[in-house]
Amino acid sequence: MKHVTYSLTVRGYELDSFGHVNNAVYLNYSETALWNFFKTNGLLSAITGEGLFPVVLESTQRYIHELRLMDEVRIDTELSCTSGIVRYKHTMTNETTGLVACRVSGKLAYVNKERIICDVPDAVKELLEKNDDED
Amino acid sequence: MKHVTYSLTVRGYELDSFGHVNNAVYLNYSETALWNFFKTNGLLSAITGEGLFPVVLESTQRYIHELRLMDEVRIDTELSCTSGIVRYKHTMTNETTGLVACRVSGKLAYVNKERIICDVPDAVKELLEKNDDED
Amino acid sequence: MKHVTYSLTVRGYELDSFGHVNNAVYLNYSETALWNFFKTNGLLSAITGEGLFPVVLESTQRYIHELRLMDEVRIDTELSCTSGIVRYKHTMTNETTGLVACRVSGKLAYVNKERIICDVPDAVKELLEKNDDED
Amino acid sequence: MKHVTYSLTVRGYELDSFGHVNNAVYLNYSETALWNFFKTNGLLSAITGEGLFPVVLESTQRYIHELRLMDEVRIDTELSCTSGIVRYKHTMTNETTGLVACRVSGKLAYVNKERIICDVPDAVKELLEKNDDED
Repeated sequence: MKHVTYSLTVRGYELDSFGHVNNAVYLNYSETALWNFFKTNGLLSAITGEGLFPVVLESTQRYIHELRLMDEVRIDTELSCTSGIVRYKHTMTNETTGLVACRVSGKLAYVNKERIICDVPDAVKELLEKNDDED
Repeated sequence: MKHVTYSLTVRGYELDSFGHVNNAVYLNYSETALWNFFKTNGLLSAITGEGLFPVVLESTQRYIHELRLMDEVRIDTELSCTSGIVRYKHTMTNETTGLVACRVSGKLAYVNKERIICDVPDAVKELLEKNDDED
Repeated sequence: MKHVTYSLTVRGYELDSFGHVNNAVYLNYSETALWNFFKTNGLLSAITGEGLFPVVLESTQRYIHELRLMDEVRIDTELSCTSGIVRYKHTMTNETTGLVACRVSGKLAYVNKERIICDVPDAVKELLEKNDDED
Repeated sequence: MKHVTYSLTVRGYELDSFGHVNNAVYLNYSETALWNFFKTNGLLSAITGEGLFPVVLESTQRYIHELRLMDEVRIDTELSCTSGIVRYKHTMTNETTGLVACRVSGKLAYVNKERIICDVPDAVKELLEKNDDED
């Protein structure tokens, strides 16, 4: 299991007419945090190359406290990999207020061009099976 | 419990670089189907007026078959209301292929300007407590 | 030159915190109207096939009257093709109020996988060079 | 006239099916750079408070070189204010390749709750009329 952190600032156009971040935008944040994890670990080709690409199979979001314009958000992520599935849990914390804004848990798998689920690429598997303290 | 149906066509900009509808866009579809339900039942003020507005508390999406450019999507929705919570389930079916693309289940509540959860407006409650055949 | 019309309804998540359609969303509408034109003329492969795809080179939007939740929008489009460039002008009218919401004028070209500008596909060119009354 | 710089990284969901940043997303970038300018100058209330809010009147984008996944983008912005209009020009440069990706020029005005154009708030005017070297 791996733990990683990603930070971002809420952008104006991500707010809806209720003046807070729209519920769908949290999935944009989730995806951004995941892709950043792959990038910082030299696994960007695991997203864009090799004829395999990751697809989200399932996601659950629990919206706890709203996010507003320019709020600073810290996303703490736990990632693991078992049986061909990458599991992730994000805790999105509003650094401006200290409150947890949203919890996301999801699963992704790798598919090929024919949309058939394949095994997780070895480089991703090895990274996720390694514990944090083995880095 | 109420059953309603809404249809839309996949738009080009909703696709991501994998050539299919991005996972976050399904929440846009979910919201659009819900708002349309409120509108067609004369309850748009239940979204924009009265000082109360609906917020999503929780949503789970199971992504089953991808959607692609210009696919026709039918969204069948079940809505109910208990204990101050509106529950909804969408089945999003790709009319172009006949396959279920995604199942969404979620909960929303009504909050006031101070972001305190309030009771569901009576007009919404009455509508959702009525069975379809009572219309 | 061709004239076409496309209609859509403003969706809730397209509003920003000012309660009106965000300026970027008008480009989503522009793209949707164009792709729909290609589709209804049997030229969808001109978007997704043949190794050529259309890219926007330039766009100007004049925002005149805001659009709000559930407004019905009619997009009247003029399309022409000269010197390897497709030119388009959209007039987006709010059917709910009768007011012009936005005027968009833009240019697109076709590029290949190497991102080199190529000639407009013959099927597109023929369609756009034909006058409306020749259909 | 003021010059400011803002940087961001291209996010995965901002790509469309052509594998590059969708044309509408450049307006999201434009807005983000502007709001950041207001924030770093202590003028966030000029966006969210006082009963006045900025609306885009016009925008022109010239798309020059595409942006791709995880590209680093530097946005250099010139802002000025005359006759109740804030004018801005962005040059968006892909730091990863060194190429200019897009030029945006636009105008915004301030409107009140009744959507009537008002004078630019004094704090914004003073800031924009001051030259960079007077800071």
